[in-house]
Amino acid sequence: MAQPPLYIGVDVGGTTIKAGVVNDRGEVLGRAEVLTEPWRGQDEGLSRICEAAEGAAARAGVRAGEARAVGIATPGPLDLAAGVMLNPPNLKPWRNVPVRDHVARHFGLPTAFENDANAAALGESWVGAGRSARSLVLLTLGTGIGGGIVLDGAVFAGSHGHAGELGHTCIEVNGRPCGCGRRGCLEAYASATAVVARAEEALASGAVSSRLAQIRETEGELTARAVFEAAESGDAAAAAIVGQTAFNLAVGIVNAMHTVDPDLVLLGGGMAVGDRFLESIRRHVRELAFEVPGRHTEVSYALLGAAAGFIGAAACARRLVAASGVS
Amino acid sequence: MAQPPLYIGVDVGGTTIKAGVVNDRGEVLGRAEVLTEPWRGQDEGLSRICEAAEGAAARAGVRAGEARAVGIATPGPLDLAAGVMLNPPNLKPWRNVPVRDHVARHFGLPTAFENDANAAALGESWVGAGRSARSLVLLTLGTGIGGGIVLDGAVFAGSHGHAGELGHTCIEVNGRPCGCGRRGCLEAYASATAVVARAEEALASGAVSSRLAQIRETEGELTARAVFEAAESGDAAAAAIVGQTAFNLAVGIVNAMHTVDPDLVLLGGGMAVGDRFLESIRRHVRELAFEVPGRHTEVSYALLGAAAGFIGAAACARRLVAASGVS
Repeated sequence: MAQPPLYIGVDVGGTTIKAGVVNDRGEVLGRAEVLTEPWRGQDEGLSRICEAAEGAAARAGVRAGEARAVGIATPGPLDLAAGVMLNPPNLKPWRNVPVRDHVARHFGLPTAFENDANAAALGESWVGAGRSARSLVLLTLGTGIGGGIVLDGAVFAGSHGHAGELGHTCIEVNGRPCGCGRRGCLEAYASATAVVARAEEALASGAVSSRLAQIRETEGELTARAVFEAAESGDAAAAAIVGQTAFNLAVGIVNAMHTVDPDLVLLGGGMAVGDRFLESIRRHVRELAFEVPGRHTEVSYALLGAAAGFIGAAACARRLVAASGVS
Repeated sequence: MAQPPLYIGVDVGGTTIKAGVVNDRGEVLGRAEVLTEPWRGQDEGLSRICEAAEGAAARAGVRAGEARAVGIATPGPLDLAAGVMLNPPNLKPWRNVPVRDHVARHFGLPTAFENDANAAALGESWVGAGRSARSLVLLTLGTGIGGGIVLDGAVFAGSHGHAGELGHTCIEVNGRPCGCGRRGCLEAYASATAVVARAEEALASGAVSSRLAQIRETEGELTARAVFEAAESGDAAAAAIVGQTAFNLAVGIVNAMHTVDPDLVLLGGGMAVGDRFLESIRRHVRELAFEVPGRHTEVSYALLGAAAGFIGAAACARRLVAASGVS
């Protein structure tokens, strides 16, 4: 009996590898997660990617080989055409990892390969916050800032797979140093790392914040979450940092709007939380954008959380099958 | 006898209205130019737009009504769907000008309507420097900075007609004031206006430049061209301004590359001149961009000069006919 089509999506992150079995309606039938531990080397990494896929299949009560196709989403930089991860900073010491072909051979299945933020954007477009948008831009706010663009239901990858690298658009010439080696990148102003860096700078410069100082004393270190919570609880120094972050994020969002002009801008990742933060971003976007997109472009939080990447990877697998003409 | 199809393109600028009759291969068969003199009012403006189109037809030895369609390119902001120019700053006091429907009624012809920089980008893509590129971004460097994006032979207008507004992407939070009222726009750093403003600032701050001071003394005012010429002739203050302009332009170009990742970036407009300026921009782009697009994305000058706008407008007319199914 012909089974309804299933797709396996795998999202390779610096900490964990997440996989899910997804059906044609984007429903997750089984999921699994394994630690990445990249320092164990890329051969071990490739094994774990396959292990995660098999774990998800087992949870869904199928064998991985029964899926129509697999989709793998990984951090960049990557050579999309070759199916190779180049030298992702969060997966050191991996280098030139032929992930697509390895997975395809292992399972004997067509395998799609995509940048993780692009995959997450496609996932949100398929079954998340972007279901009714014809075009969307997703920014994932985490350790770094990832970006993805979806136009008419497909990832917009650009000519060399580098479209949507919005974390590394410059909002301040010769500005704050970014982890990528450049200066002034959006990521250096509005990632979780940037929030912590600003909080440390505020404390070092003697900003009055009993709350932040206390957190660092008791927790040993500051986190973006702690800064956001301190802001919520009324700490002025923390609130100033969150406000500045919202403003800088709005600058980056408006740059994307004045370039791509999407229906919808989505914010995902661990830092995309709280009504006040979102309202503040929206207010700055309206101030900074041209009137027409400022009035019409929706800015919202993403919906799929940590599942966006593997659901999007499964969506890539599904598109690969559709594009291949095999049903 | 069936005539080969002709299209009329009209490019409405702050100083002149340029029109051309263009055939299916993008060849210009006749062209005309009339002064805009926007202060005479928008009714007079609409008449002159039609007059320019008729003048071009006369030069091509045809009546305007024999064309298949007309394309009109105008400065923004505009309501693309309604065919209306809203309140273009360079065409004061025009406001809510129903240019598309006026022209369509006047000639009894299907009429396309497009932002001028988008039209110029389409013109370059059709028969200019972008003929072999699948995707391109055009920046026109003049009084302001216009931007246009072409993907697979079509203008990429975005969801609200505001894609490609690259002159008003921010490269410096709270930076130099822009004519649009925002701060830090690329236009405030790399337009002809910005070059002159920087030269004035350099003189006011006592920068040693006998050349720039002399030009202002003899010409009464500085122009971007004069600053570029002074730089070429070895004036250090002028060279510093041109170098800074090239760097800031590269920042804006790389932002576009990290968002849209095109095959090709073209620079047009009066300021896109000189091998040294282009080489300097290219060097900064390679430094600032991710390795793969930095190596593969071509950065060049546009080819069609002042004709890009009306040729692109004619290309819009041609696409309108093709899309309408009428041959």
